Amino acid sequence: MDAAVRPRRVRAHGHDVIGGGLSVVVAVDAFKGSVGSAEAGAAVRAGVLAADPEADVHVVVVADGGEGTLEAVAAARGGRRVPVETVDAVGRPLRAPLLLLDDGTAVVEAAATIGLPRVGPVDATVPPRASSWGVGVQVAHAVAAGARRVLLGLGGTASTDGGAGMLAALGVRLARDASPGRNPLWPDDRAGAALLLDRDLPGLGGAELVALTDVTNPLLGPTGAAAVFGPQKGATPEQVAVLDGALAAWCAELEAAAGRALDVPGAGAAGGLGAAVLALGGRLEPGFAALADLGGLDGALAGADLVLTGEGSLDAQTAAGKAPAGVARRARAAGALVVGLAGLVVHPLGPTGALFDAVLPVHPRPLALVEALDPATTLAHLRTTAEQVTRLVRAALLSR
Amino acid sequence: MDAAVRPRRVRAHGHDVIGGGLSVVVAVDAFKGSVGSAEAGAAVRAGVLAADPEADVHVVVVADGGEGTLEAVAAARGGRRVPVETVDAVGRPLRAPLLLLDDGTAVVEAAATIGLPRVGPVDATVPPRASSWGVGVQVAHAVAAGARRVLLGLGGTASTDGGAGMLAALGVRLARDASPGRNPLWPDDRAGAALLLDRDLPGLGGAELVALTDVTNPLLGPTGAAAVFGPQKGATPEQVAVLDGALAAWCAELEAAAGRALDVPGAGAAGGLGAAVLALGGRLEPGFAALADLGGLDGALAGADLVLTGEGSLDAQTAAGKAPAGVARRARAAGALVVGLAGLVVHPLGPTGALFDAVLPVHPRPLALVEALDPATTLAHLRTTAEQVTRLVRAALLSR
Repeated sequence: MDAAVRPRRVRAHGHDVIGGGLSVVVAVDAFKGSVGSAEAGAAVRAGVLAADPEADVHVVVVADGGEGTLEAVAAARGGRRVPVETVDAVGRPLRAPLLLLDDGTAVVEAAATIGLPRVGPVDATVPPRASSWGVGVQVAHAVAAGARRVLLGLGGTASTDGGAGMLAALGVRLARDASPGRNPLWPDDRAGAALLLDRDLPGLGGAELVALTDVTNPLLGPTGAAAVFGPQKGATPEQVAVLDGALAAWCAELEAAAGRALDVPGAGAAGGLGAAVLALGGRLEPGFAALADLGGLDGALAGADLVLTGEGSLDAQTAAGKAPAGVARRARAAGALVVGLAGLVVHPLGPTGALFDAVLPVHPRPLALVEALDPATTLAHLRTTAEQVTRLVRAALLSR
Repeated sequence: MDAAVRPRRVRAHGHDVIGGGLSVVVAVDAFKGSVGSAEAGAAVRAGVLAADPEADVHVVVVADGGEGTLEAVAAARGGRRVPVETVDAVGRPLRAPLLLLDDGTAVVEAAATIGLPRVGPVDATVPPRASSWGVGVQVAHAVAAGARRVLLGLGGTASTDGGAGMLAALGVRLARDASPGRNPLWPDDRAGAALLLDRDLPGLGGAELVALTDVTNPLLGPTGAAAVFGPQKGATPEQVAVLDGALAAWCAELEAAAGRALDVPGAGAAGGLGAAVLALGGRLEPGFAALADLGGLDGALAGADLVLTGEGSLDAQTAAGKAPAGVARRARAAGALVVGLAGLVVHPLGPTGALFDAVLPVHPRPLALVEALDPATTLAHLRTTAEQVTRLVRAALLSR
């Protein structure tokens, strides 16, 4: 059946469009270490249009609270980027953007300020130094700029300080040196004494603080911030034990000050920033879902024939909280076909496989990992794969 | 749309089947250097059934006259394999099968007798030694066994002898040593003299001789057997020139004996075996088409929803005479969706892309070429890719 000479009649799920192209939503997560969500989405869009020049393609930038969060909100909602003079996780000066939306929402991306890739070599020298101070500077700026709501994207950070650095930057007085480039939780000659000098936590001028994360780890213990994420941030096993103990003491002090339990699911996100957000009276929201709502994903999905999503790697764990799984669930709910694209597909896909109509690799030939991570290569292969998938879906939908 | 809970209603092209699975034809060419057509087809079939346990899957073994030809005919038509004591291209004893069908057809596969991979190291010592003698032994056996028609699959051979070795084995007297392990065309101290001692060519007991090949090269000149295929068979540039000159002299003698022009398209197949077949009064047929007809491909395609084909590599040249292109054209004519699978997809696909509804790579991750050629790896990846493609096509066809 040569689709080109057939009457064009797309009727994927109740809609019946004669003469139009496919309705396609592209919502691809970053291919970590290679390309961001917006770039990947643009390449996929180009592939879709190569297959179906009349397609109506809507690119949604995807994020989960980690790197790319600010970009995702900006792509969906516009807003004004305000550069803020702050510091990175180890105290070096850094200019990082804050996004201000018209509705009084400010977006702060922790990864853009205290992100792990900015630190340089990740080794045992990092945990005693890495602090969330720079994020506190950003939040303070957002509040000073009049934000009524601060969305704080967690994830991808270098610090394991329970948010003590952020609180210090927001004016909370600590008993130990909390200046940038020092982890306030790291034991010194005053270790053992209380860290919090007074129990008055700042009110952020009445602004609502919402942390975005899909991490559900608690603050403490074997699934906590130190044990699970510490090693990725350079911590030796001994340092993990030190950090976990320090976080426990800090948690007890913060709970007394805040009058609420803080060692809850999600509190362990971003080295314990989650706990500090809760201590400030903020709340944690699932990152992908909140950002998808903010970006109008469901609106884009309404009436779509095909949804293309993906991530650098798709495997059995993707189903548990990764962005492409969230896209797939919403796509299915909207009655669209959904295909996951990845540089690395790990079979058996288990529960992940069931979420998608197909999970397909993008690299068209044997190649080394280092080449697979090359941005130009990834974009070219995303484009060609999206083109082939769109051709196939279009032909199948038209072959009725 | 969860296909599993929808009424199953497949209506890909006029047919309307309620309650049944997809109708799928699998016709995958060999992944050269890794797996044969039948093995590849079985893996793809398993993938299709993993996606749709109720699918009606028909595996057609694909060949074009080269390696796998005998297997393809046997898979489609059964028949009796008769082992024949013959010799390989360099004269070593070899037992190679002959296939006898009930209708009086015998199938001889040149690659199974004088195939290049059997020779060992391919270097400049091969061209002076490699002969088509072993094929002549096979043809003689077929005729002696009462065959009324001999299908001779060309392709994949080590020899560049214009079929002189085959003719010698069939009883034609030559002026130079034509015994196994010597290329009768290779110049010796009698070079320059006529090679053919008499002009009576054997009649093969009245049996019809049909050579199968999709090669369209002439015997001589820059696109001839020596120039194009000689280097693959170990010939140095100097040897190519010697072989081309020897083929020209041989062609003139054969034409005089046969009373027909022999330097025609296809005569250059299998080192000039094509010309010798013509000299014997035989004819050349396009290999893929003849074998597809013999295997009943069109019958299998009637009513198919989806056709899965492929080859180790798919590129812009695939459209020009390769088996997957033939499968794709017939699949399209039958109104089925057709997807090409390959270990290596070379974009831009040009005219090849237009033949398929999609061309997709099978390897789900970055890997080295040597791993991509591992048979177990290829089969596993063919299976998973076929499963994903079938899931997608099924969902699209059911999404009404």
